[in-house]
Amino acid sequence: MRYSKMLLPTSKEVPAEAEVISHQLLLRGGFIRKLTAGVYSYLPLGLMALRKVTAIVREEMKRAGAQEILMPMVQPGDLWMESGRWQHYGPELLRFRDRNERECCLSPTQEEVATDLARRELLSYRQLPVNIYHIQTKYRDEMRPRFGLMRCREFIMKDAYSFDADDEGAARSYENMRVAYSRIFARLGLDYRMVEADSGSIGGSYSHEFMVLADAGEDTLVLCRDCSYAANVEKAMVAPVLASAAGVPLEELRKVATPGTKKVATVAEFLKVPPQQIIKTMIYQIERDGPEPREFVAALVRGDREVQTVKLKNLLGANEVNSLTEDQVWEFLRLPVGFIGPVNLPLRVVADSEVMAMVNAVAGANEKGFHYQGVNPERDFSVQVTGDLRQIAAGDRCPHCGGLLHFREGIEVGHIFKLGAKYSEAMNATFQDREGRQRPFIMGCYGIGVSRILAACIEQNHDRNGIIFPMPLAPVQVILLNLGLEDEALTSAAEELYQALLAAGVEVLFDDRDERPGAKFKDADLLGIPLRLTVGRTFKQEGLVELRERKSGETTLLPVDQVVAAVQARIRRELA
Amino acid sequence: MRYSKMLLPTSKEVPAEAEVISHQLLLRGGFIRKLTAGVYSYLPLGLMALRKVTAIVREEMKRAGAQEILMPMVQPGDLWMESGRWQHYGPELLRFRDRNERECCLSPTQEEVATDLARRELLSYRQLPVNIYHIQTKYRDEMRPRFGLMRCREFIMKDAYSFDADDEGAARSYENMRVAYSRIFARLGLDYRMVEADSGSIGGSYSHEFMVLADAGEDTLVLCRDCSYAANVEKAMVAPVLASAAGVPLEELRKVATPGTKKVATVAEFLKVPPQQIIKTMIYQIERDGPEPREFVAALVRGDREVQTVKLKNLLGANEVNSLTEDQVWEFLRLPVGFIGPVNLPLRVVADSEVMAMVNAVAGANEKGFHYQGVNPERDFSVQVTGDLRQIAAGDRCPHCGGLLHFREGIEVGHIFKLGAKYSEAMNATFQDREGRQRPFIMGCYGIGVSRILAACIEQNHDRNGIIFPMPLAPVQVILLNLGLEDEALTSAAEELYQALLAAGVEVLFDDRDERPGAKFKDADLLGIPLRLTVGRTFKQEGLVELRERKSGETTLLPVDQVVAAVQARIRRELA
Repeated sequence: MRYSKMLLPTSKEVPAEAEVISHQLLLRGGFIRKLTAGVYSYLPLGLMALRKVTAIVREEMKRAGAQEILMPMVQPGDLWMESGRWQHYGPELLRFRDRNERECCLSPTQEEVATDLARRELLSYRQLPVNIYHIQTKYRDEMRPRFGLMRCREFIMKDAYSFDADDEGAARSYENMRVAYSRIFARLGLDYRMVEADSGSIGGSYSHEFMVLADAGEDTLVLCRDCSYAANVEKAMVAPVLASAAGVPLEELRKVATPGTKKVATVAEFLKVPPQQIIKTMIYQIERDGPEPREFVAALVRGDREVQTVKLKNLLGANEVNSLTEDQVWEFLRLPVGFIGPVNLPLRVVADSEVMAMVNAVAGANEKGFHYQGVNPERDFSVQVTGDLRQIAAGDRCPHCGGLLHFREGIEVGHIFKLGAKYSEAMNATFQDREGRQRPFIMGCYGIGVSRILAACIEQNHDRNGIIFPMPLAPVQVILLNLGLEDEALTSAAEELYQALLAAGVEVLFDDRDERPGAKFKDADLLGIPLRLTVGRTFKQEGLVELRERKSGETTLLPVDQVVAAVQARIRRELA
Repeated sequence: MRYSKMLLPTSKEVPAEAEVISHQLLLRGGFIRKLTAGVYSYLPLGLMALRKVTAIVREEMKRAGAQEILMPMVQPGDLWMESGRWQHYGPELLRFRDRNERECCLSPTQEEVATDLARRELLSYRQLPVNIYHIQTKYRDEMRPRFGLMRCREFIMKDAYSFDADDEGAARSYENMRVAYSRIFARLGLDYRMVEADSGSIGGSYSHEFMVLADAGEDTLVLCRDCSYAANVEKAMVAPVLASAAGVPLEELRKVATPGTKKVATVAEFLKVPPQQIIKTMIYQIERDGPEPREFVAALVRGDREVQTVKLKNLLGANEVNSLTEDQVWEFLRLPVGFIGPVNLPLRVVADSEVMAMVNAVAGANEKGFHYQGVNPERDFSVQVTGDLRQIAAGDRCPHCGGLLHFREGIEVGHIFKLGAKYSEAMNATFQDREGRQRPFIMGCYGIGVSRILAACIEQNHDRNGIIFPMPLAPVQVILLNLGLEDEALTSAAEELYQALLAAGVEVLFDDRDERPGAKFKDADLLGIPLRLTVGRTFKQEGLVELRERKSGETTLLPVDQVVAAVQARIRRELA
C-alpha cells in the first residue's frame, strides 16, 4: 500500500464535534468520516482495523464450535410481535412500512430471526446444541448518538445465539462463549474485565458484560480489591449494613417548616440532622404490560444514597423507567419537588432496604416549605415493594467477601446473556426431546460490538501524539517512511525494502508521499502503526535503517538486510 | 467441518414457492432460508460460497488499484435530494423518518454518499484518480421479489465509484474496471457476456452489463454471430432498412369501417394489407421533471414491431414510462384501444424511424370500429419526436457489421456506468484543477451483484441431481463420505484422511452422519461439491478410496496415501 495512492486524509486539527479522544483520533487519522449523526463511513485504514477485529472474532467463534451464517438487517414486524419486543423495545427500534404496507424494522439484534430459524430447522434433540452467529450491520435509533464509534446508530456487531435442550446444556454453551470472549479480548490486546450485568432490553435470567477499562467509558464498574467480584454499577448488589434500631423510642410524627430547603444537604443543615436521617423520595413514571401500562411511583432511598433506576425497573418488572422534571411532577401530580415524602402519598411506594430500617426519619410533607420529622416506616406510611434499590457507592463493601470496592469507568464491548426460554416460549420454538415431547429451546445470546472495539482500543491506547495500536488490532503492522524522495539511492533502497517486506508477508504502509520528514513522522505517530521504519539520513550516512516501536519509542538502527527479519521477530512476539 | 455438527438442512422435496432451479437448489441444499418476501438468511454453506465470490472480487479490485471502504446502509434524505434521486427513484427506494423526524432511506446504491465523501476529501487534481468501493448489504423495495437470490429486496452488492479530473481519465478508469470485471467473472468460472446496456435509474452517459448466460435470465441479450456486438435488448440499436417510397403516389385519407378488429393481425386480414402497412399506436403515461411532470404520449411503430419502452423513456428524457390498461385509456383519454391512430390525436406523438418512411398506411381512427387508410406521416399527422423506438427482433441485422443477430437469455451480475458529471454537478462536488479552477469530478460507478452471482452460477451449472459448483465458487472443495460408521477400520481411515486433508489446506466437508450411503451420495450431488471422496466398500476390500468429480462423474480409485496429492492436483487445475 502506497500512501500516495490512498484515501487517508489525516489532519492536525482537533475536530470540534469530537469530545472523546478515540473520536478525535479516528477522525484526525482518516479512519472514519461522519455521514450523519451516529452514522459513519470507514475509510480504507479504518476498515483494515475492523477486519483485524472480525478475523480474531471468527477464529475464536470457530474454535468454540459456533457456525457463521448471515441474517438480514430488514426484519418483518410479525416476528417482533410474536416475541413481544415490538411493544417493548422503545423508539430505538427503527420501524417502517414497506411498499406493501407491511410493518418492518431494522435489526438492532437478531433473537427473533435466530429463534425463527431454530424452530424451522432444529426439530430434534439430536441436532442440539447449536450455536449460530453472524457479523452484520445493526441499527439503533439512538436519541443522542455520540463519541464517534462508541455510541453509533449504525454499527457492526457480532451476535451469536445458542440453542440447547436443557439448562445444563445452556450453561455449558454460556461458559463456552465466556471462554471464547475472554480469549477474543485477550488476543485483541485489550485490558478488560468481565462483570455481572443487567440484561436490559434483551431480557433473560442473567448476563455478563465485557468492559474495556477506559476513562471515557460510559459505564461504571464496581470491582473488589480482594476477590474477583466485578459488576456493572447498574447491577452491583449492595449488602446493606443496617444500624440496629432496637431500643430507640419512636418519636411522634410532626410537621416542621423548612423554608427554601429543596436539597437533602440544606434540609439536613436546617434541621441539624445527618443526611442518613433523611428519606429521599424520587418520582418516576414507569411503563409495563397490563391494563394500566403507565404508572407514577415513588422510590425511597436514604438521603446520602442515589436511586439506581435499573434496579427500580427490575424490582417493578417494568419495561421502562423515566424520571420527570420538576414541572412535570407538578403538572401531573401537584407535588412540590424537594418537599415530597411517603406520608399520605397517593402513589405506589418502593423503598430501599435501608429505608425500612430507619427510625425517626425526616421526609417531605408534600407541601412546599414543610417536612415531617419523626417519620417511621410502616407506622407512618406503607410500602408496596422493598429491596435493593440504591446505587452502590464509595464505602460500600463487596457483597461476596466484604472487601473494599473500587470504581472504574469502562466501555462495554461484549455482552453475554442467559436467555432461558424467554424467546422460545413466546415464539413457540420447540424441539422433540428424547421422550418424544415438544420442549422449548433453552437459549443464550452473545454480542460483541465490533466497531466499538476500535474506539475502546484507542481510548485505552494513545498518547498526545496519536493512537498506539496493539499489534493484533493495527490496520497494518509497519509504516515505512522514505525521507529522500529526491534522492535516487534512498528512494530505490526504500522501494526495495518495501518489496522485501511485502514478499515476507508483512503488512506495510509505504509513505512515499512528497511531504517533509516532520509531516511523515507526525502522521506515523497519529496513525499508531506499531512499527515504523525510516530510510533517511542514517541510511545515507551509514547504510542503516531506523526501526522504531510506536509504543515504547525505542529505536534501533539496522543494516538494511536485517530489517525484514527484525520486523518479523517483533510482530511474532506481539502476536504471541 | 463435520456434517453432523452443521446447520445444513437438505431436503428432497422441491419447494412449491421456488420457480427457478437456482432457487430450488439453494433451498433444498440448505444454503439459504427465506425470512420474508425477497429477504433471505444465508446458512453456513451459503455464506461460504458467498465468501468465495467476495474474495475474488476483493483480489481483482485491489489489483485494479481500487480502495476498499465501508459506507453506511442508512442514508440521510438530504443527499438524495441534492442529487435529485429522492424525487426520481420511485418506490423501490425505501424511505422512512428517524426518531428525530429526519428523512432517511436504505441504500439501494451509494452514488450520493461516495460523491459526498469525494467533495469533502478530494480537493486537488493531484489526489486523482481515486476508485473506492465497498461490499455491503443493499435494499430495494421490489414490488415482486422473486426467483430466490435472483431478485431480492435485501441483497449484497459490491459497488465502486471512480473520480477523475477529465473525460480521458474517466475513460481509463472505466476501462480499468471493464478489465477487472472480465477477470472476476472469468475467475468465477462463469460463461458470461459483456453487453451494451441502458443506464436506468443510475443515469450517466453509457454503460455495460455483464450477463451470465442462463435460460432463466430475466434479461434478453442480442448477440451478433459475426462480430463482437452484444447488447441488452432494451438498448440494442436497430439499423432500419427503409423501403424506398420514391415514386409511390400518395392516396387520399379515407375512413373505413373495421368492426371487431382490435389487433394488428385482424385489421391486416380484414383490410387485406400486410402488418408492415399498419401503424401501431400505443399510449403511455410518462413522468419527468418540469412544470407538467405527467403526460400521456402516443408511440408509433410499424404493425409488426414492438415499442421498446426503455428507448421511449430515453428518447423523451422521462424518468418513468408506464403503460396503461384499456380501461385507463378510455377513462383518461376517451380513446378506444385497438382503434387509436395519430390522425387528429390530441397527444404528443413519438414515432419510430420506420414509421416516418411509411406510405399510404393504415391507422386507427380514434373511433371504435373504424380505421383510416391512406395515412401518410407529416401530411396527415405531425410527429414531435422521431428515433429508434422499436425493440430489436429476429431478422434484424447487426448495427455494426450487418451480420445475423441472435438472442440469448441472461442474468445481470455486473453493471458498469460512465456517469460523467451527473452527480458531481448536481451535488457541487468539485476539485481544484492544475490551473486553480474548481471543476466537477468525472465519475464512473461499477456494481457487482454478489449474492445474485450465486443464483446465476447455479442456473448455469446444475443437473437433475443438484448443483455443480465450479471449483472457484464452491463453498468447499471436497466432500468426504465415511460409509462405515459402524466399522472401526473404515471410520478411523476416514478420520485420518479428513485430518490429512485439513492439514494440507484442503477445504473439506466430512460427512460423518449416521445416514445410509444412498442419502450421503444424494446430498453430495445436491450440494454440488466439486470433488467427492468415499471411504467405503472398496477401501474395506482393496484399501482404495474413490475420488469422483461432480461435473464429469468420472471416478478414480486411489490408495489412501495418494489421495491428498491427487485432490490437490485437481484443485490446482480447476483454480488455474
